[in-house]
Amino acid sequence: MNPELRQGPLTEQWAIIAPERAARPIEVHPDGHAVPIVCPFCPGHEAQTPPALRSYPDGPGWRVRVVPNKYPALRLAGNPAPHGDEFGTRSDGVGAHEVIIDSPVHAHSLTDLPAEQVRLLLSVYADRLRELRRDGRLAYGLVFKNVGAAAGASLEHTHSQVIALPRVPAFVRQELITARAYHRRHGRCLCCDLLDREVRDGRRLVLESRHFAVLTPFASRMPYEMLLLPRRHAARFEELPEDECADLAGALRSALLKLERAADRPAYNYLIHTAPFTGPEPESFHWHLEVLPRTTTLAGFEWATGVTINPLPPEQAAAQLREA
Amino acid sequence: MNPELRQGPLTEQWAIIAPERAARPIEVHPDGHAVPIVCPFCPGHEAQTPPALRSYPDGPGWRVRVVPNKYPALRLAGNPAPHGDEFGTRSDGVGAHEVIIDSPVHAHSLTDLPAEQVRLLLSVYADRLRELRRDGRLAYGLVFKNVGAAAGASLEHTHSQVIALPRVPAFVRQELITARAYHRRHGRCLCCDLLDREVRDGRRLVLESRHFAVLTPFASRMPYEMLLLPRRHAARFEELPEDECADLAGALRSALLKLERAADRPAYNYLIHTAPFTGPEPESFHWHLEVLPRTTTLAGFEWATGVTINPLPPEQAAAQLREA
Repeated sequence: MNPELRQGPLTEQWAIIAPERAARPIEVHPDGHAVPIVCPFCPGHEAQTPPALRSYPDGPGWRVRVVPNKYPALRLAGNPAPHGDEFGTRSDGVGAHEVIIDSPVHAHSLTDLPAEQVRLLLSVYADRLRELRRDGRLAYGLVFKNVGAAAGASLEHTHSQVIALPRVPAFVRQELITARAYHRRHGRCLCCDLLDREVRDGRRLVLESRHFAVLTPFASRMPYEMLLLPRRHAARFEELPEDECADLAGALRSALLKLERAADRPAYNYLIHTAPFTGPEPESFHWHLEVLPRTTTLAGFEWATGVTINPLPPEQAAAQLREA
Repeated sequence: MNPELRQGPLTEQWAIIAPERAARPIEVHPDGHAVPIVCPFCPGHEAQTPPALRSYPDGPGWRVRVVPNKYPALRLAGNPAPHGDEFGTRSDGVGAHEVIIDSPVHAHSLTDLPAEQVRLLLSVYADRLRELRRDGRLAYGLVFKNVGAAAGASLEHTHSQVIALPRVPAFVRQELITARAYHRRHGRCLCCDLLDREVRDGRRLVLESRHFAVLTPFASRMPYEMLLLPRRHAARFEELPEDECADLAGALRSALLKLERAADRPAYNYLIHTAPFTGPEPESFHWHLEVLPRTTTLAGFEWATGVTINPLPPEQAAAQLREA
């Protein structure tokens, strides 16, 4: 069975039904046990992955390598138009699912890599988004990273992923709506104003660089959650100028180092919310990066309500991160 | 710091900031290690919990015991009115958080208890919801259960929880809206029609009892997700007649036994979506119970999008559950 996107009758949530994902090898398990495998991401084992979509630089001696996910959640085939009725809608799972191998070094964290390597990696993220946007069938490109079994990583060698979707996903759509409503009311960008305010207030500020600020969100969903905002208003991460990209590498690496010191190298995810591929440039949207440390577990309450329970106030988290 | 309900500027999601939760003892950890503790839920250790709100029957020899959560996410104190501005809204975390000790026996699962004990437990759920509704300050009462560390349980002795909230949570609000829209279009209940259709179709049907049916949802978010629907239209679980309650105990216990056989006793949550305490009786709402097995891990993609990736098609899951 090829992957499908499905929407049920009771909620507006979509699920990807992707049987091929079940076959992926698991090196690190959430219960802590690790199964030794030959790392498919280390140099010399390139034959264990599908052929590279791009290498930087091309060929042997690569520093970052992009491959199709061998166990994809979505595929660039089929018809993305949903069909069905009020009791369920489905479409072919049309999209892309790529793995970005962050480094030839078998490191477990970005913080084990020099800032220059992180800069190269971020520029590869931008490359992939620009490339996927050109495909024309895709509505949204998401870059994310899973570190540690509790954050959904199945392999230890530091890597990132890109999933491109045929529709704008719910959480991004909600942010677009909220940002547009604020822009209509004030003629200004919500995130620009938020950044100003949080930097002046200071209680939730983690760090500042020339072009970026990192803060713990007022309604943090989990301990040590961080939001990285560019100071310069821009809807698209993938159009980041070179000097800002180098500065971002430093700011992101510093924020992750602080997290690892404050919370004893926790499992975490990060993700980039950039503007959708499709539609006009949304002038009210401001791209950002979210870091989600996974020290707490979602329980029945969160699944039932959409409300999260966070035992660490973000003001305390920011103080700990500033000092870490 | 007392618990707070907070809403940030970018999304409409609420978070509960509850520092007291950080102090709770953890018997079972997600990484698989267990810390032996004297079980506070076993008979003879009643002094280790706050005094009981109710015991069934009252006093020694109880079969089900209800206590305030010692590490509550919300408290019945303060002002539930939100205040703030576009960059963040907060209110006191006014609500209730109770623990229901399912049985005097130190069992790990409901399936280790006889059906009659499960029936008593379900009637206690209904009692607590009716009692919390009478408080008048609360908008919603949620009954849920966490089993296993991966599902957020910190203690092994089988127990359930009730959290009552000062506002109707997002996921329930969405279901109310969807059900009302369907009712306006067709003059019928969405869940009644869904049940008819799924029973006739049969591909996602797990089991049927006199008053209930259990199915795997068309857009299942995870392997072996189950939806239990009452055949008789009713908005409120807590008004379940006695004969239906006994039948529900049997149906729920059977469904959980099938899950434990098919998926090797996984961690799971279940939760009951009943109508809100406040407002008129929503004639279009149909209460239901969801079972959420936790064999997969949320990763960066799910946190970024609100879209889940499920490697097991619900039609295959239902076939496995039927045969288990």
